[in-house]
Amino acid sequence: MNAEILSVGTELLLGQIIDTDAPHMARILAECGISCTRRVTIGDNWDRLVATLSDALKRADIVVTVGGLGPTADDITRDAIAAALGDEMERVSAMETELREFFASRGYRWTESNAKQADKPKSGEFIDNPNGTAPGLVCRKGGKVVLALPGPPNEFIPMANGPVRAILEGLGGGVIHSVTLRIAGMGESHVEEVVRDLMESESPTVAPYAKVGEVHLRITARAKTAAEAEKIIAPVKAEIEKRLGKHVYGINDVALEQAVLEMLTNRRETVGVAESMTGGELGSRLSSVPGSSAAFVGGVIAYSARLKQSLLGVQGAVLMKHGPVSRETAEAMALGAQNRLQATYAIAVSGNAGPGVDRDNKPVGLVFIALATPTGVKVEEVNLRGGRETIRERATQIALTLLRDHLVRK
Amino acid sequence: MNAEILSVGTELLLGQIIDTDAPHMARILAECGISCTRRVTIGDNWDRLVATLSDALKRADIVVTVGGLGPTADDITRDAIAAALGDEMERVSAMETELREFFASRGYRWTESNAKQADKPKSGEFIDNPNGTAPGLVCRKGGKVVLALPGPPNEFIPMANGPVRAILEGLGGGVIHSVTLRIAGMGESHVEEVVRDLMESESPTVAPYAKVGEVHLRITARAKTAAEAEKIIAPVKAEIEKRLGKHVYGINDVALEQAVLEMLTNRRETVGVAESMTGGELGSRLSSVPGSSAAFVGGVIAYSARLKQSLLGVQGAVLMKHGPVSRETAEAMALGAQNRLQATYAIAVSGNAGPGVDRDNKPVGLVFIALATPTGVKVEEVNLRGGRETIRERATQIALTLLRDHLVRK
Repeated sequence: MNAEILSVGTELLLGQIIDTDAPHMARILAECGISCTRRVTIGDNWDRLVATLSDALKRADIVVTVGGLGPTADDITRDAIAAALGDEMERVSAMETELREFFASRGYRWTESNAKQADKPKSGEFIDNPNGTAPGLVCRKGGKVVLALPGPPNEFIPMANGPVRAILEGLGGGVIHSVTLRIAGMGESHVEEVVRDLMESESPTVAPYAKVGEVHLRITARAKTAAEAEKIIAPVKAEIEKRLGKHVYGINDVALEQAVLEMLTNRRETVGVAESMTGGELGSRLSSVPGSSAAFVGGVIAYSARLKQSLLGVQGAVLMKHGPVSRETAEAMALGAQNRLQATYAIAVSGNAGPGVDRDNKPVGLVFIALATPTGVKVEEVNLRGGRETIRERATQIALTLLRDHLVRK
Repeated sequence: MNAEILSVGTELLLGQIIDTDAPHMARILAECGISCTRRVTIGDNWDRLVATLSDALKRADIVVTVGGLGPTADDITRDAIAAALGDEMERVSAMETELREFFASRGYRWTESNAKQADKPKSGEFIDNPNGTAPGLVCRKGGKVVLALPGPPNEFIPMANGPVRAILEGLGGGVIHSVTLRIAGMGESHVEEVVRDLMESESPTVAPYAKVGEVHLRITARAKTAAEAEKIIAPVKAEIEKRLGKHVYGINDVALEQAVLEMLTNRRETVGVAESMTGGELGSRLSSVPGSSAAFVGGVIAYSARLKQSLLGVQGAVLMKHGPVSRETAEAMALGAQNRLQATYAIAVSGNAGPGVDRDNKPVGLVFIALATPTGVKVEEVNLRGGRETIRERATQIALTLLRDHLVRK
């Protein structure tokens, strides 16, 4: 059983708004055990819409359209579905009455164009839309099912999650369920090398996704229920966890900063930051986690050399001799922060994010990340590529990984 | 001249991530005067990818693919383009050498799968990717142009905005050119009220876009060249600037933090931050601007009450009496920061970003933002709606607006 999703609307096509409806529908299809094999976006253009619907009906058992159900002249999805199915349109007078009453109750002016929202292909049934005037549609003809939903997310989401999901569950054969392992401290190709044999499995499937400074491995199984899928996934998940060991930092939606904060909170330990190049980004990520104040105390954004001295106690002689972007400065920043913030751990980041070489001729992308612990301080030197934003983001990720590695090892 | 965009990736198709690349590319095509007539998303499936590329090449002059250029087994876009164009693949040894050197310089382990990123269809040329290992491609064959870009946004966006845009401008018939006025301190409906008559114009068109804490007005004209379009846009731009006055803080891509830092740098003044609720986000935004160190000195992330006292000198009595989320605490934080950071201005943010009411029973969304200036301190109290991330983002935006308003008035 497979499906295609067709998003209709010129402003979607031209990128003036981001389509979040189609990904939402794709997730529902997967959860209902229906393979989504293609998503298409086209504008409000009759010929292209009818041709695209006809093509989709040749390939797929189910076609879901999103958008183009409203009252205006460029809302043509209803009629295009009828044309693609070889169906006639009919006006449903009960629906027209309902629409007229709705307009009257709100004091809106009725215009004749609104009546077309009471039209449907003969093989179709309306789907109630409690949040808007345009009802949805489900048409069943020649072994195919066409579902039509409105585009505005506040109308689309309740319809998708409610009646449309119920229809799809009735059609689908079980569920497609995934578990994601989140991995830090290993590159994508290295991860793939270690699990390559498992990636050849057809059930469950294993697929890697590269993120900034981390890799996700998604294990997916198809089964009658989510619980059965979990059983298929479990042994492969355990095998990957065994092979990757401490590099697996979290499951599904756990972010790296969250994993680190949970470890600290469980140990009743705290962390503070001393940021130069990242200018607050590391603190911002740590404090983005609800409840972070249990383990994150705060920090110092020592952007200027003066503040590295006054707020962190870095010696002027160290800054003079080695420069702000150096192993020695990063180490002194971390130790100063640990001391002044009274935190168990302190992470310091000093580097050059570009765009040009800095006053000391330190190249773009050279970053020193220091971690002060109760037993000493270690410094990691890295050379990062990319624009200013990417370098800062990667440095932040490495800083969090450095702390996590220490906590895992200890 | 028309184009289709093809997004490749199972996680996109299944809705596990939202595709922002394809809308971005659609906007660039429009700006280059090229009609985007269809966008398709498919998974990492060889047969479907080759068939979809072949179909797209029948209909469109230009096909842009996004994703599937990496080193892993499911990255098949390069080969699929060659298959659809009837082209052979060839390995470019100079590119392989470059990749090997990159891996060596980072201390990453080289695996053979990485070498395939040095492969290209014979009719293709590489497009440099400064933010990742997978280069892009431009292939010209039989009157058709195929462009291939990597999927990760930090790699995709610079490539799309730079070399790919230059190629498309060379292909397009005229341009659709826009100028965006960025407006702070006014709501969308207020802005719309002031410029409503101008929004009825057909050339140039004027359209408002609501962003977090700011409004953008986009003025767009179609012409042979960008310079000709600018001439059409100029009088309307001047009229809007006259009506909105100081509320227009920047043009096109100038971010609010950049506008603020430029004003400070010109005045040889500086700013520091004292962040509680935002945890570093304000400092992160200020330091994201290249050259920000001329005016941004740094700050203190006083997340814990203890650090508000030790690093900012907030009196324990103030914290006890009014709580950390209060007018009095925000004011003391700003004054303490101004003093200890030795900055002309200091901005302090203290509030409750949720998810729950805090220890002092302060409601979610209550935020105090204080600005210390050479002549005194002012505090703004706001009640913000939304999730934790939205509240932090809005508070940061208001903090920057508060400083800008002060600088504009002075």
